[in-house]
Amino acid sequence: MNNKRLGGQTVALQTPPSVLSFSNIGGKFEGEGPLASYFDELNEDSFFGEKTWEKAESAMQKKVLQRALGKANLRPGDLDYILAGDLLNQCIGSSFSLREFGIPFYGLYGACSTMGESLALASMLIDGGFARRAAAMTSSHFCTAERQYRMPVPYGSQRTPTAQWTATAAGCTILSDDGPGPYITHVTCGRIVDKGITDANNMGAAMAPAAYSTLSAFFRDTGTRPEEYDLIITGDLGELGHGIVREFFQKDGVDLGERFQDCGLLLYDRENQDMHAGASGCGCSASVLNGYLLTGMRKGRWKKVLFAPTGALLSPTSSFQGESVPGICHAVSLSAER
Amino acid sequence: MNNKRLGGQTVALQTPPSVLSFSNIGGKFEGEGPLASYFDELNEDSFFGEKTWEKAESAMQKKVLQRALGKANLRPGDLDYILAGDLLNQCIGSSFSLREFGIPFYGLYGACSTMGESLALASMLIDGGFARRAAAMTSSHFCTAERQYRMPVPYGSQRTPTAQWTATAAGCTILSDDGPGPYITHVTCGRIVDKGITDANNMGAAMAPAAYSTLSAFFRDTGTRPEEYDLIITGDLGELGHGIVREFFQKDGVDLGERFQDCGLLLYDRENQDMHAGASGCGCSASVLNGYLLTGMRKGRWKKVLFAPTGALLSPTSSFQGESVPGICHAVSLSAER
Repeated sequence: MNNKRLGGQTVALQTPPSVLSFSNIGGKFEGEGPLASYFDELNEDSFFGEKTWEKAESAMQKKVLQRALGKANLRPGDLDYILAGDLLNQCIGSSFSLREFGIPFYGLYGACSTMGESLALASMLIDGGFARRAAAMTSSHFCTAERQYRMPVPYGSQRTPTAQWTATAAGCTILSDDGPGPYITHVTCGRIVDKGITDANNMGAAMAPAAYSTLSAFFRDTGTRPEEYDLIITGDLGELGHGIVREFFQKDGVDLGERFQDCGLLLYDRENQDMHAGASGCGCSASVLNGYLLTGMRKGRWKKVLFAPTGALLSPTSSFQGESVPGICHAVSLSAER
Repeated sequence: MNNKRLGGQTVALQTPPSVLSFSNIGGKFEGEGPLASYFDELNEDSFFGEKTWEKAESAMQKKVLQRALGKANLRPGDLDYILAGDLLNQCIGSSFSLREFGIPFYGLYGACSTMGESLALASMLIDGGFARRAAAMTSSHFCTAERQYRMPVPYGSQRTPTAQWTATAAGCTILSDDGPGPYITHVTCGRIVDKGITDANNMGAAMAPAAYSTLSAFFRDTGTRPEEYDLIITGDLGELGHGIVREFFQKDGVDLGERFQDCGLLLYDRENQDMHAGASGCGCSASVLNGYLLTGMRKGRWKKVLFAPTGALLSPTSSFQGESVPGICHAVSLSAER
């Protein structure tokens, strides 16, 4: 089975797993953005009917999982695994959402790369013959993230221009050994890259070298070129980080062009919604993938998409202790055809 | 490849991956316990030469990974993946330890079940043909855990009798598609079980139902009986939780007998070290496995070991909000023979 490992960090799936169904959910600001029509559910209530924002985040995950199951006519018992994680301390968004489902669960922590990490591992479990169906899921919530990483929301702290806006959103993909596509053809596992950036309000710049590292590895390992993809999309680098990655490739003589985009630059209206450098959070790339991107692929808008969300592996404690921000990026390649 | 999935939650590995090398490290109290001679390194300095306890925890992971690589004569580039996680917010123990290695990294959050989860996923990546060698690693540190979950250590808070003592320890296993054994023959992925226990100082009781659930699934799925294993060992249930699991099986008419043990009851001297209900933390089961247990298996003391660490998927925030404690247990079956 050696041909699965392409060398480097990339694996070619022998029988590319198919997307069976997908679902996303968003909050008020996501509903005011340009991708609003691609959401299954938008809720103006930041509590999603719960008593706390943390419980709200769990409720969001519960809802997207239920919807994704419903769209595929599946019960929880039909899933062999769910791989999920989130930004909350000890990943309580995922663990509390999954209490009632009884699905075998591997918990992940990849910060905002979690949608890529969960899809990558779920794909390998299916292609390796260990599962027929597996779900990949993650979420973020503006209010839980602000309280945990920065300041409680009611303080109304001023934000720096490089800051991004954590999306209140969740997304879930159900993969299967058989289905209508799109198919996951390759996965590239990221290495931690830390270039010494210590400004926790400039995560885009901190994560950009990781995105460059994983995307370069993907092209090198697969022997493909950016032009062969209709869309190469990072997770939440935002304006600054995305520009840095584009520049890194330019230095290599590679122009990524218009096909190079970022979920964080698509989720909100860059003119009329004041989100500074763009959207961020696990829920950003998760909700853009499980709405706008997968819908577009099913409709034939894009045939080959390289999805590469990045994560900043810091904590408030590590920043207080003067540490820089380690970044990671996990990529999965999606294709309309097997 | 359907015969890999035994049904239920268990997978039989077709070419059971081998333990290639293993390493552990502990602190002062671990060095005063009965398993001291099974540690590769014991350090009286709780800072492990660093400026903070969080950095100390990262240093511990760095050291065990270096030692495990050294014992197998490997360089970091020889590993296809490392799967690691810890208890610290945003798992900074793992991410900061791995910055310099450049190994493709999937971050996990399974609380104290992480050693089981990381071994399970690493085994499947190898058996599925996606990797030749992969490492599984985790850690915990008494002082970082106290500060994060309970009270800063200098407060000297009194502990309740059901409380456990978070081990200051780390462990790393390197698995390979070929090697001298022991071999990982089966993995059982846990489901979240939450029986409504809200006392965060009684984690053993909170996690016991998850251990019972996964162990029962393992025996059911594999069609084996407890008597067929030389050792069935949970991670850190402690005295109370371990007794509850034994009782659950007794109600099913199954006497687990002397072969049923718990890493948390082995790490410290139950008479002369006042650790209340026993040891806990990711580093407890990780250091007991990657020392006492794997050394014993290599020496022929045990031929078949069922290793089933549990995790309590709570956070201080979830407890403050009145939530109960969800538990999970991931099991791997180790055998001296393939």
